[in-house]
Amino acid sequence: MSNPNAAQAPVTVVGLGLMGQALAAAFLGNGHPTTVWNRSAAKADELVAKGAVLAPSVKDAVEASPLVVICVSDYDAVHELLDPVVGSLQGRTLVNMTSASSSQARGTSKWAVENKVGAYIDSAIMAIPPDVATDAAILLYSGPKSAFDEHEQTLKAVAPAGTKYLGEDHGLAALHDVALLTMMWGIENSFLHGVALLGTAGVKATEYLPLAKALGEMSLGFIEAYAAQIDSGDWPAEDSTIDTHVDAMDHLLDESKELGVNTEWPALITALGKRAIAEGHGPASYAAMVEVFRKPSA
Amino acid sequence: MSNPNAAQAPVTVVGLGLMGQALAAAFLGNGHPTTVWNRSAAKADELVAKGAVLAPSVKDAVEASPLVVICVSDYDAVHELLDPVVGSLQGRTLVNMTSASSSQARGTSKWAVENKVGAYIDSAIMAIPPDVATDAAILLYSGPKSAFDEHEQTLKAVAPAGTKYLGEDHGLAALHDVALLTMMWGIENSFLHGVALLGTAGVKATEYLPLAKALGEMSLGFIEAYAAQIDSGDWPAEDSTIDTHVDAMDHLLDESKELGVNTEWPALITALGKRAIAEGHGPASYAAMVEVFRKPSA
Repeated sequence: MSNPNAAQAPVTVVGLGLMGQALAAAFLGNGHPTTVWNRSAAKADELVAKGAVLAPSVKDAVEASPLVVICVSDYDAVHELLDPVVGSLQGRTLVNMTSASSSQARGTSKWAVENKVGAYIDSAIMAIPPDVATDAAILLYSGPKSAFDEHEQTLKAVAPAGTKYLGEDHGLAALHDVALLTMMWGIENSFLHGVALLGTAGVKATEYLPLAKALGEMSLGFIEAYAAQIDSGDWPAEDSTIDTHVDAMDHLLDESKELGVNTEWPALITALGKRAIAEGHGPASYAAMVEVFRKPSA
Repeated sequence: MSNPNAAQAPVTVVGLGLMGQALAAAFLGNGHPTTVWNRSAAKADELVAKGAVLAPSVKDAVEASPLVVICVSDYDAVHELLDPVVGSLQGRTLVNMTSASSSQARGTSKWAVENKVGAYIDSAIMAIPPDVATDAAILLYSGPKSAFDEHEQTLKAVAPAGTKYLGEDHGLAALHDVALLTMMWGIENSFLHGVALLGTAGVKATEYLPLAKALGEMSLGFIEAYAAQIDSGDWPAEDSTIDTHVDAMDHLLDESKELGVNTEWPALITALGKRAIAEGHGPASYAAMVEVFRKPSA
């Protein structure tokens, strides 16, 4: 038998940057007949050695599989590559893993409908290339559920434990992507601000780490309580009031000034807290701060 | 036997706000003979009903126990109460749980030495009153280790699982306090920013929560790697470079603007990232951002 993997669904990967190569390798690794295309064909060499088929054109690549994954630099590149061959996408599912805004994702779904693409799914990759095909990868998908369900098993090659379908609204993957990124930077920056504060007393980052992680876990518990309050629209101060938080925020800002470390991070935290008080949320739980985040600025 | 708890060490609590009451109740609950004092004596009623002794004066309170815990509104109040009776603190250990800056804590340690206080320990409470005496409480201590060791068992009544000794430098408790607070607000604010972003598409906070928590756990793993890099002073980009982060930060800022939610939070994240690049850290891992946080501002 020349192809022991014939039972697995074929898949095409367009775009072989570091991420595209990781994606194609993941599909190959799960036994999917995998067709690849890239502007500079040399990027396919390793994949071809592993069994991938290098298509001579985008059109050939698209026509090789019922599932076409594209991962290129931006949406201009997506349209530059796919507009000339869009007829070939009829009856096929296009999964776009290129980074985008929610409005770009929604706009591309309109383009897909207008051009009779079989089904269009927008995806966001919450992983670096080495994490692809490991349990550390999170891949977000939004678009028609029926198309996602049809290809879910194939897509799981990329994120075995983290393949998440978010809903029919094509903007959801991009929106969750930025929401999760702001969460990541919020955690990382606030850790680094703490490291800077403690560094003034000679405390090492690794010495601080266990307490920071304990507080991080505690805070992830707090947001669980706040999420329920936000959805109910009612935020009784079961823990601390925003008034109490802001007293401590002032203290954080003063300490940061006195010790000569970054003051912008605590100054913004304090300003946002004071704005919530000005809007009447002083006696509420921290969940009410969402009202501040729902507005552009003061 | 009139006092079944005579085997436990006596302790005095000065200041019976909500937190002071919780502290005294915790000591009583662990069987410590507990003496209390408060400016308005009525706040002691419940504690006295539980077996506490209400001292008629601060001096009597201090002299009742080898361990004196004070928890009042600020350090002015600490000195107003204790300066007149400081002679009575000779041979005793004073644990100050009043919120303070690191310089106030260090200043008070000098005052303690000058006034021959037996031992002075500065403490920071990372808990709300209802969490005292539960496993959710974290209590930080800094000052002479011998004094901490002597009273650790008694102090564990307040934070059975979270009693942490940080070192001889009296400023360490206050510094860890603010470091952990900035971590908490960083996590909470970035979650709320994400909730605001997703709210524009009708996604509920509780729907977003599981992914936010998963990303939070992932980020707590990232800071572990960064902590080791920071201490080594070398930050190779084993995951993403700061250059790559900043591309995505711009995207977060654009999305926040386009959707009409808070832009200050992502604008500061982006500005700090760009500053790291300007300082030459573009090819480094995110750990190098600590250099930005170590300086007051641009």
